[in-house]
Amino acid sequence: MKARTRLRARPGLVLRDDDAGATPLRDDDGRPKQQVKAHERKLTDALTAKIALHQQMLFSQRKRKVLLVLQGMDTSGKDGTVRALFSRINPMGLRAAQFRAPTAEEAAHDFLWRIHPHVPGAGDIAIFNRSHYEDVLVPRVQKLIDEKECKRRYAHIADFERMLAETGTVIVKVFLHISKDEQRKRLQARLDDPEKQWKFDDNDLVQRKRWDDYQDAYQRAIGATDADHAPWYVVPADSKTHRNLLIARLLLDVMEGLDLRFPDTDARLSALKVE
Amino acid sequence: MKARTRLRARPGLVLRDDDAGATPLRDDDGRPKQQVKAHERKLTDALTAKIALHQQMLFSQRKRKVLLVLQGMDTSGKDGTVRALFSRINPMGLRAAQFRAPTAEEAAHDFLWRIHPHVPGAGDIAIFNRSHYEDVLVPRVQKLIDEKECKRRYAHIADFERMLAETGTVIVKVFLHISKDEQRKRLQARLDDPEKQWKFDDNDLVQRKRWDDYQDAYQRAIGATDADHAPWYVVPADSKTHRNLLIARLLLDVMEGLDLRFPDTDARLSALKVE
Repeated sequence: MKARTRLRARPGLVLRDDDAGATPLRDDDGRPKQQVKAHERKLTDALTAKIALHQQMLFSQRKRKVLLVLQGMDTSGKDGTVRALFSRINPMGLRAAQFRAPTAEEAAHDFLWRIHPHVPGAGDIAIFNRSHYEDVLVPRVQKLIDEKECKRRYAHIADFERMLAETGTVIVKVFLHISKDEQRKRLQARLDDPEKQWKFDDNDLVQRKRWDDYQDAYQRAIGATDADHAPWYVVPADSKTHRNLLIARLLLDVMEGLDLRFPDTDARLSALKVE
Repeated sequence: MKARTRLRARPGLVLRDDDAGATPLRDDDGRPKQQVKAHERKLTDALTAKIALHQQMLFSQRKRKVLLVLQGMDTSGKDGTVRALFSRINPMGLRAAQFRAPTAEEAAHDFLWRIHPHVPGAGDIAIFNRSHYEDVLVPRVQKLIDEKECKRRYAHIADFERMLAETGTVIVKVFLHISKDEQRKRLQARLDDPEKQWKFDDNDLVQRKRWDDYQDAYQRAIGATDADHAPWYVVPADSKTHRNLLIARLLLDVMEGLDLRFPDTDARLSALKVE
């Protein structure tokens, strides 16, 4: 089954902790965990090489645009995914944008204002590490916006994404699904590891207390904004190597679907002699 | 009659040269032209002072946003309007953006991409000297886009403007309506005046040859995108002084409608002694 089909968010999605665990690879049953991880890394490497080739063709054609949206709870692996999958990609055609809590200037504008400048141009892949979806998650859980305003934002997002899709953007929205217990382990690891402690933010614990509210806000946002031209994918992310492998498969599947190739050669240019 | 009502684009708008002439002020009948112009300048000055006061209240409240879109044929007076009306406004709360032929990077994106960063934040007035409407005018007249794509862009504009309106933006769209003969005079004046010749562009004559096509494209764009939350106003612009007066009246009328005031004072701050 294609990754696009397998990972696509189902209507009426319910985010359960059980689904965050890695689905073992079919041929990995019974193998030791470390061996499975090594195997998954090897498969992912091979896929990222193929993704890099497709990205070159995308860039050479300068027609299509690819937008990868990464969302997920704290420690769900957004940074890790970017590092693992995109270190081989030509930075000229790659734009990574990170969206934190809005600044005063950003908050003074509609919530899409800070997003729009970062959408991909023709030939580009853009990665959003967090995105416009933050604005239907954090303020909703904190009750800074009511249900009516939240639904209006879903509609604004839907309009915006449809416009992007109709102007040549292939949108891939990924929810990195970790379990509450996996987050506990990862936060504890940040606290315990002197080299990781800088990543820890007191606010992470505040948000963690609202875990169920966030899962609910995610479910609803995903349900309200999933569309064939802007699909959501739910990736089990308790295992990092498995998560990377699944997203690599998904991205390659999407890019193969674009039927990319290098442009035809120009006879005049082919005949040109540099003097 | 309020300026908003008087100047509002009518359904089934037809742009006729006759309507580009200045409607004489009621009490100006029979007065010499220069005297009328002087009177109009004086009235406009008084209005811009009032607009400046409303802008201060807008800025102090940091709630509403005002977007003034200026569109019109070459020489229709977009630059002149900005100079005449906004030289008194606090630059901190004023953003003027000019949109020329798209760069390669801009053309590689959806047509709203280069627009969005310039929309007003809370408390701001933004002026668009040309705008996203260029993308349903130039490419349509030059047949770079077909009717279907043009209608899709109208819909994208409508979605975008509705979103801006729903997030607190008061949109005022002004078409500066000049006659073909007035443009001839103004272009000739540019050619004849050594200090103005730099403004002349050969492309102006190319566009002038498509006058009727542009009028048609404007009519259709205005008809397709006029809405109560994003209204179009058609301002007779053959007379510069009359044009400025009409737009000043319109803008003041709009801002008075916002019921702006300065924020309540804070008792703690009022009692504070600076040491």
